[in-house]
Amino acid sequence: VTIAGIYPPMATPFTADGDVDYDALRFNVARWMTTGLRGLVVLGSNGEAAFIDDDESERVTGEVRALVPRDRLLIAGTGRDSTRATIDACRRAGRVGADLVLVRTPTAFKAQLTPDAFLRHYTAVADASPVPVLLYDFPQSFGVTLPLPVIATLAAHPNVAGMKDSSGDIAQIADQVSCTPDRFEVLVGSAPTLHASLLVGAVGGVVAVANVVPDACVRLFDLARSGRHEEARDLQRRLTPLARAVTGTYGVPGLKRAMNLAGYRGGWPRAPLPVASDAVSLQIQRLLAEWSADAPQS
Amino acid sequence: VTIAGIYPPMATPFTADGDVDYDALRFNVARWMTTGLRGLVVLGSNGEAAFIDDDESERVTGEVRALVPRDRLLIAGTGRDSTRATIDACRRAGRVGADLVLVRTPTAFKAQLTPDAFLRHYTAVADASPVPVLLYDFPQSFGVTLPLPVIATLAAHPNVAGMKDSSGDIAQIADQVSCTPDRFEVLVGSAPTLHASLLVGAVGGVVAVANVVPDACVRLFDLARSGRHEEARDLQRRLTPLARAVTGTYGVPGLKRAMNLAGYRGGWPRAPLPVASDAVSLQIQRLLAEWSADAPQS
Amino acid sequence: VTIAGIYPPMATPFTADGDVDYDALRFNVARWMTTGLRGLVVLGSNGEAAFIDDDESERVTGEVRALVPRDRLLIAGTGRDSTRATIDACRRAGRVGADLVLVRTPTAFKAQLTPDAFLRHYTAVADASPVPVLLYDFPQSFGVTLPLPVIATLAAHPNVAGMKDSSGDIAQIADQVSCTPDRFEVLVGSAPTLHASLLVGAVGGVVAVANVVPDACVRLFDLARSGRHEEARDLQRRLTPLARAVTGTYGVPGLKRAMNLAGYRGGWPRAPLPVASDAVSLQIQRLLAEWSADAPQS
Amino acid sequence: VTIAGIYPPMATPFTADGDVDYDALRFNVARWMTTGLRGLVVLGSNGEAAFIDDDESERVTGEVRALVPRDRLLIAGTGRDSTRATIDACRRAGRVGADLVLVRTPTAFKAQLTPDAFLRHYTAVADASPVPVLLYDFPQSFGVTLPLPVIATLAAHPNVAGMKDSSGDIAQIADQVSCTPDRFEVLVGSAPTLHASLLVGAVGGVVAVANVVPDACVRLFDLARSGRHEEARDLQRRLTPLARAVTGTYGVPGLKRAMNLAGYRGGWPRAPLPVASDAVSLQIQRLLAEWSADAPQS
Repeated sequence: VTIAGIYPPMATPFTADGDVDYDALRFNVARWMTTGLRGLVVLGSNGEAAFIDDDESERVTGEVRALVPRDRLLIAGTGRDSTRATIDACRRAGRVGADLVLVRTPTAFKAQLTPDAFLRHYTAVADASPVPVLLYDFPQSFGVTLPLPVIATLAAHPNVAGMKDSSGDIAQIADQVSCTPDRFEVLVGSAPTLHASLLVGAVGGVVAVANVVPDACVRLFDLARSGRHEEARDLQRRLTPLARAVTGTYGVPGLKRAMNLAGYRGGWPRAPLPVASDAVSLQIQRLLAEWSADAPQS
Repeated sequence: VTIAGIYPPMATPFTADGDVDYDALRFNVARWMTTGLRGLVVLGSNGEAAFIDDDESERVTGEVRALVPRDRLLIAGTGRDSTRATIDACRRAGRVGADLVLVRTPTAFKAQLTPDAFLRHYTAVADASPVPVLLYDFPQSFGVTLPLPVIATLAAHPNVAGMKDSSGDIAQIADQVSCTPDRFEVLVGSAPTLHASLLVGAVGGVVAVANVVPDACVRLFDLARSGRHEEARDLQRRLTPLARAVTGTYGVPGLKRAMNLAGYRGGWPRAPLPVASDAVSLQIQRLLAEWSADAPQS
Repeated sequence: VTIAGIYPPMATPFTADGDVDYDALRFNVARWMTTGLRGLVVLGSNGEAAFIDDDESERVTGEVRALVPRDRLLIAGTGRDSTRATIDACRRAGRVGADLVLVRTPTAFKAQLTPDAFLRHYTAVADASPVPVLLYDFPQSFGVTLPLPVIATLAAHPNVAGMKDSSGDIAQIADQVSCTPDRFEVLVGSAPTLHASLLVGAVGGVVAVANVVPDACVRLFDLARSGRHEEARDLQRRLTPLARAVTGTYGVPGLKRAMNLAGYRGGWPRAPLPVASDAVSLQIQRLLAEWSADAPQS
Repeated sequence: VTIAGIYPPMATPFTADGDVDYDALRFNVARWMTTGLRGLVVLGSNGEAAFIDDDESERVTGEVRALVPRDRLLIAGTGRDSTRATIDACRRAGRVGADLVLVRTPTAFKAQLTPDAFLRHYTAVADASPVPVLLYDFPQSFGVTLPLPVIATLAAHPNVAGMKDSSGDIAQIADQVSCTPDRFEVLVGSAPTLHASLLVGAVGGVVAVANVVPDACVRLFDLARSGRHEEARDLQRRLTPLARAVTGTYGVPGLKRAMNLAGYRGGWPRAPLPVASDAVSLQIQRLLAEWSADAPQS
């Protein structure tokens, strides 16, 4: 089964008291399932996975699974700093119905994260995971980079299905595609380079802005896949300002604010993340208004 | 009570299977307690805190407390990425007997970690913690820096007792001392700058090499405090090569190997950290031999 | 007149004694002029401009001009650290026949290079230059980035014709195109992103690999411009390994070695740049052989 | 002859038109020569060397020499990006009377600046220079670091007399002292770490603030050399805010403003450096006033 398509890295709504807001979560999932999204990614960086404990993670994944039909894919973020904790998280995610797990690079003891350490870590995780593994590289956030030879080696593991690359580096994505077999699929994690990434061989995207305007992202994907590159480029250009605002510029607080404005329930972030300021909210409101005025068809 | 003195950021020994090795832990603590150390820091970065879950953390802290006399200080690392989890960790550490908690900066969503976010995070933690809080800044490891005005403001909180700075930046430590009242005490976390830091006003050090040669570190501290700076400088110079090997150059695997060679029980690291290679072990053996040949008196 | 098309950032050949090798220079220019290149860039970073003094610069530009027909463009690198020296270099380049000047960002006193400082610098240069100015942004090499609002403002200056961006950041190039009028043209300076850059609105490329295989670069350009994106992508993919070797991986020494292997006269680099080692030479020979085997038509 | 002592990295005054202001230059030198400075450094980074051409450099060095008595040292910055240009600059500086040359690391083609490239560069320069060479390492400004083994090797060259380190990294300075013979002398280039550097073995300092309050810097040097470390530390603490303002925070424009306020003639900076803003000027005025109120004896 291909993973090709568009996924939101789902924001996790919290109540004002900081608990997971499961009502809001279910509301959002149900609404996303009315669009052309290929599936959902739960507990990615934009899902504030760093702030969510293991029991909460298991429940969030299970609740979402119950609302995601079997022909759509549920991908669960399960990367932890130790191999042991990562394996445990993969098993729990598999148990409650995740179709794949997305395993970010470890972040602790960066100087010791040699190619060999990455290989041992991901091999142990892929050996143990009950569902296929996607590697996840995001140097700007995690402070390390998966070297290309490591990716090429891991791509031969039968339980490694592909990867997500959020570096925004097109040439690197092209390399990842080139040095791996076709069954290893690459998703791009940087919305401003979505079109260019599809052009160089990525099969889809996990982009924060798909939390807000999923159908526009799906349309960009469809245009690119059918070779209508001029139209895709124009749509990309119109989408980029909003995409960059959520979450590059304004972070998860901005993303949650945009979701609220678009009819989803973003909820509160967890501290130390702040609620979006009034200035940020106005700016996002303006970007969304420009987007709508400009794009009545999406 | 002053926190002045030397502390090892205690390595946590694991068994070959990856479980906490409580026997080795107790052995080490008992032996450290025969030296002039002011106390112990459990679950700091060198303690592989990133790899240890909440239940293990609580048990490790409790086991160590049982062996640390009341006139020595037990400091427990309790920093987490969210405010909520940090507060929970502080409460658990206090419950099992920690004298102070050492709260590293959050690492997730670095772009949102504004001065205001740091203030809200640390104020909430200090308000809730049952024991005094030490701030912990280590830019090279955590990817963010506590701004000086944030430190100056937090220093006025009655439950903030001081900080640990591992940046190795002497001028910054001098600033931290200058911009805070005397009751706010600064510990240096970088062994190669231990002497220079004491000279500019730090009251002690939390240095990895104190896991291996605690008395030498204590002697350096005593020399500096009694104004014998030429002798302190010479001792610093002899200590630096070993200090830099553990943990700057060879990481926690190197530190654990050095502990074994010095009669402690370092145990295994947790994956993805590797066991020290033969080449690293030989190098550390050589450094320890040079140290001993050179320093019969310590 | 549009600057659209492909340009090599011309390597400057030196003799074994370190003098400019004008014979080799003329040989190369004559040969490049038999291809579909839009023109030449002299004294860019790959031309070792940092090592060439003002009198040499003037002579190199003049010698090249004599061999570049009027319907092709000669662009001369004239950026210096001070505004004064940059203006002087622009005047000398104009005097000996450059069609445009390429003005890199200053590199000294980076902390003082505020948006306002950039604006004053480039405005003074554009006011004084006898020929149109291209801005040149290459953060990885010069350590500073031209902010987008600065570019947008400078694009309104009648003597600023466009820019070269070597960051490899597609989203940034798309922004530069979006925030400037059509008469402001963007050239990409990073060969591995040549195709993607053309797709987002760049009008051409200044790419080191065009020193070696100019016609392949021109062909990629033609394919992209005529909407044949699948073929362009395939050519890009085959070209990237060689493109990355020269100059990303092996630097100017590697580029000069590749030129020798391709029938040009690369000459010696100037110290402290070394001559390419045997290992590097072999690696480049292998990449060129693969390229030729793979691409008989170019 | 030892180079031990304090030197200002002399600011170069320019007229409003951007020419070197030789009157102001001579005025400053004459005044500095009434203090306890060991000598002067002309054409360092703070001297805007990056903006001064070869003929101007020669004249500036000669004019200053004429006013510096033979028992004080004149050190001239002569580093360039190419080996060839650096050698030429050393020869010209020697010809007009420099006692030593200060040779910064090259900055172009950083990826090619291997240990071997540094060794060949500095060896060629030291072989050719008519006067002894000081290495100059300033990673934050030049973007490269001289590796310790390179320093240790070059220290054996008979025409290499020492180095200047502006990294602010005390442990690194201690290493440089440890791994070189006594005749190789280390000067620190970072004022906030002046005292700590002297403590770990540096023999003096080249610090921007010595342009403004030379005698205070000399006094700090004397206190440290005579083992009066408590007094030295206090003086360091009082000096640091002003030292950091010039030039770390406010750059050369701030330094020139401070010189004017202290009775020297700072002159204009060269563009793209701006004149200090009113806000900066006020801030520096405040710092100087605090310094004077606080330190009537200097």
